[in-house]
Amino acid sequence: MTANPVRIEADYLIETPVDPRLAAETMAGEQSSGTFVAVPGETPELKARAAARVESLELLDAASAPSLPVARPINPDGPWHRARVTLSWPLDNIGASLPNLVTAIAGNLWELRQLTGLRLLDLRLPLAFASAYPGPKFGVAGTRELTGVNGRPLIGTIIKPSIGLSPAETAALVAELCEAGIDFIKDDELQSDGAYCPFDQRVRAVMRVVNDHANRAGKKVMIAFNVTGEIDQMRRRHDLVLGEGGTCVMASINSVGLAGMVELGRHTQLPVHAHRNGWGALNRHPALGWDYTAWHKLWRLAGADHMHVNGIGNKFSETDDSVVTSAKAALTPMFAHKPCIAMPVFSSGQTPAQALPTWRALGSTDLIFAAGGGILAHPDGPAAGVSDLRAAWDAAIAGDAAIAGKP
Amino acid sequence: MTANPVRIEADYLIETPVDPRLAAETMAGEQSSGTFVAVPGETPELKARAAARVESLELLDAASAPSLPVARPINPDGPWHRARVTLSWPLDNIGASLPNLVTAIAGNLWELRQLTGLRLLDLRLPLAFASAYPGPKFGVAGTRELTGVNGRPLIGTIIKPSIGLSPAETAALVAELCEAGIDFIKDDELQSDGAYCPFDQRVRAVMRVVNDHANRAGKKVMIAFNVTGEIDQMRRRHDLVLGEGGTCVMASINSVGLAGMVELGRHTQLPVHAHRNGWGALNRHPALGWDYTAWHKLWRLAGADHMHVNGIGNKFSETDDSVVTSAKAALTPMFAHKPCIAMPVFSSGQTPAQALPTWRALGSTDLIFAAGGGILAHPDGPAAGVSDLRAAWDAAIAGDAAIAGKP
Repeated sequence: MTANPVRIEADYLIETPVDPRLAAETMAGEQSSGTFVAVPGETPELKARAAARVESLELLDAASAPSLPVARPINPDGPWHRARVTLSWPLDNIGASLPNLVTAIAGNLWELRQLTGLRLLDLRLPLAFASAYPGPKFGVAGTRELTGVNGRPLIGTIIKPSIGLSPAETAALVAELCEAGIDFIKDDELQSDGAYCPFDQRVRAVMRVVNDHANRAGKKVMIAFNVTGEIDQMRRRHDLVLGEGGTCVMASINSVGLAGMVELGRHTQLPVHAHRNGWGALNRHPALGWDYTAWHKLWRLAGADHMHVNGIGNKFSETDDSVVTSAKAALTPMFAHKPCIAMPVFSSGQTPAQALPTWRALGSTDLIFAAGGGILAHPDGPAAGVSDLRAAWDAAIAGDAAIAGKP
Repeated sequence: MTANPVRIEADYLIETPVDPRLAAETMAGEQSSGTFVAVPGETPELKARAAARVESLELLDAASAPSLPVARPINPDGPWHRARVTLSWPLDNIGASLPNLVTAIAGNLWELRQLTGLRLLDLRLPLAFASAYPGPKFGVAGTRELTGVNGRPLIGTIIKPSIGLSPAETAALVAELCEAGIDFIKDDELQSDGAYCPFDQRVRAVMRVVNDHANRAGKKVMIAFNVTGEIDQMRRRHDLVLGEGGTCVMASINSVGLAGMVELGRHTQLPVHAHRNGWGALNRHPALGWDYTAWHKLWRLAGADHMHVNGIGNKFSETDDSVVTSAKAALTPMFAHKPCIAMPVFSSGQTPAQALPTWRALGSTDLIFAAGGGILAHPDGPAAGVSDLRAAWDAAIAGDAAIAGKP
């Protein structure tokens, strides 16, 4: 957490058929003042101010075969050294700019033929980034205040079918879910502004139901309306949600991209629910792409209040350890004076059975626990789905594990 | 090239331990109206309007082992079927929205445990996308008009050292390159608005040199100034370049993201030079991520006039076949009435030796041929570097292959 005031640091897992020290130096050169041949002008003074540095290198067990292909391999027969490497860059190379940070730490590196594996594990940023970016405006405390939920996770669900419902059908489902006692509902990421469910009509129809319920029951359910789109569309949609009394907007961060999310993060007066769909392409191969621990920091700085982390026992390909690591990362402060905590969102095949292991793994209730099919397809209806999840969490928190095996 | 007016299509390479037809249906369900359990409301009428469809499935040779790990494998012992699959979605699900397109065709798919490999190969879009997005405003013809280069590639270079030069040092190097007869110069992607080379000062210093040279020599060298940053910064920097008489802006598309690039594409009055750094993370493993043929269409629609494709015999890990496929894709029309052609940019270790094979592979001179070290580190100086490249291309085009082996 201690930020170097003048240098950016990034940690990588590398796999290489050359001396790992040489590979790391090549990475540092490629991503700062060097190129593949010496060029005039790369003076010692220039290097001193602009060169990236290898800060540390820890050898790991070698791989038995190359993880990634190389068209013109350097040492086709290996060995395939593996190492954990930390590089650093002068902040002055780019200033506190998230898009330029991505180019510096995650630019042309994956193409290097010296590497048969490269994974960006973590990054540490100078305080200047904390000043330059909004970070989450609501986070855990703001989300709890808007929903009135304390001492336990927010119980959430996703509108299903994901896509195909009209605004009126969506509102009717939301009404049922409000009655069922839900805390949080999100649009599916596939539903934004389609022809048979236009955003504006959906928001107006849904917020009528949510506001009516709030007036009657004293509980305003948080709806994460999917504003994903272009910059002006997202701002306008945010303003509509705000005007209708809504309390959350959602965006697909990989689809919008970093500059767009920063814009939404600066503009928003509501929590930003960050959906990570597409993330698998950057993460699914263990020797390629990004660890969530590094990647999610970009979006927290850009303003994400809630960040998806998949769920324990999920329906996807991710391990539980990876899910828990991601959730803990989201709850770990980025800067002492500006923690930028994002509330982790557990979803994907979640049922009451996952409450206890999630609680035990995380040791926190600062999360959104979202079940789509688990609530909407519950044999006794959504109210039973919600109350089963609430009960499972209450029991887990109370130390009563007896209910944990309940389907 | 024939666009379905009402459905979006995407082609995938899949690898799966289940029946490939079932895997494809799972993909279609996950990315439209289905979820992992049947939910109330997924009626036949709803499916008819919103469901994605499996349009075709072609079995390929099976893999001998899973390409990607799965935490809870379905059939741990395989077999690992491989197939080429085409899915389609109703345009009405999302409308002509690039960010929402990405979520639909490239969202939660990579996480599916039914898949041990998934690669997005190509996509075809309804004409509505051509109307909704700017596409390249300049492309090949506009770039040739601004540079006055016809009948041969633009010979380009990259400012090196990539980072560390002051504005005055950068301008001095640009002056030398202008004298050397260069057509095109780009900022390195690592150089945007650093403390010792602020964007505004660099643009003013460089354009003074470029304008002087244009006045004297009648040739305005195109400089791709790296405007990568947040939305307002990019617009402001574009305006500065335009005001100083510059003729190109560059942005790192993966760092800015799609919504940001659309904004730049709508705003720009200059060619947009799209730098693909970071692309390797999406492409390096053959069973994961995106083929360039699919991916680059997003950026062309968003407004990219020039798109990087690496180079033949490059210093990176990519095969020449892959490079050539990318370049040909950039030169292939997307829509009959709005081709959205982007000029491919060849770079990375390019020398005169690559002119002939590039010409033979591409059969076109509509490209930017950029050599960084190859020009700046030429033993006889940059002018010799430029004239060697020009001569190699002239010879290649003239059918004189004798020079092709020259280093």
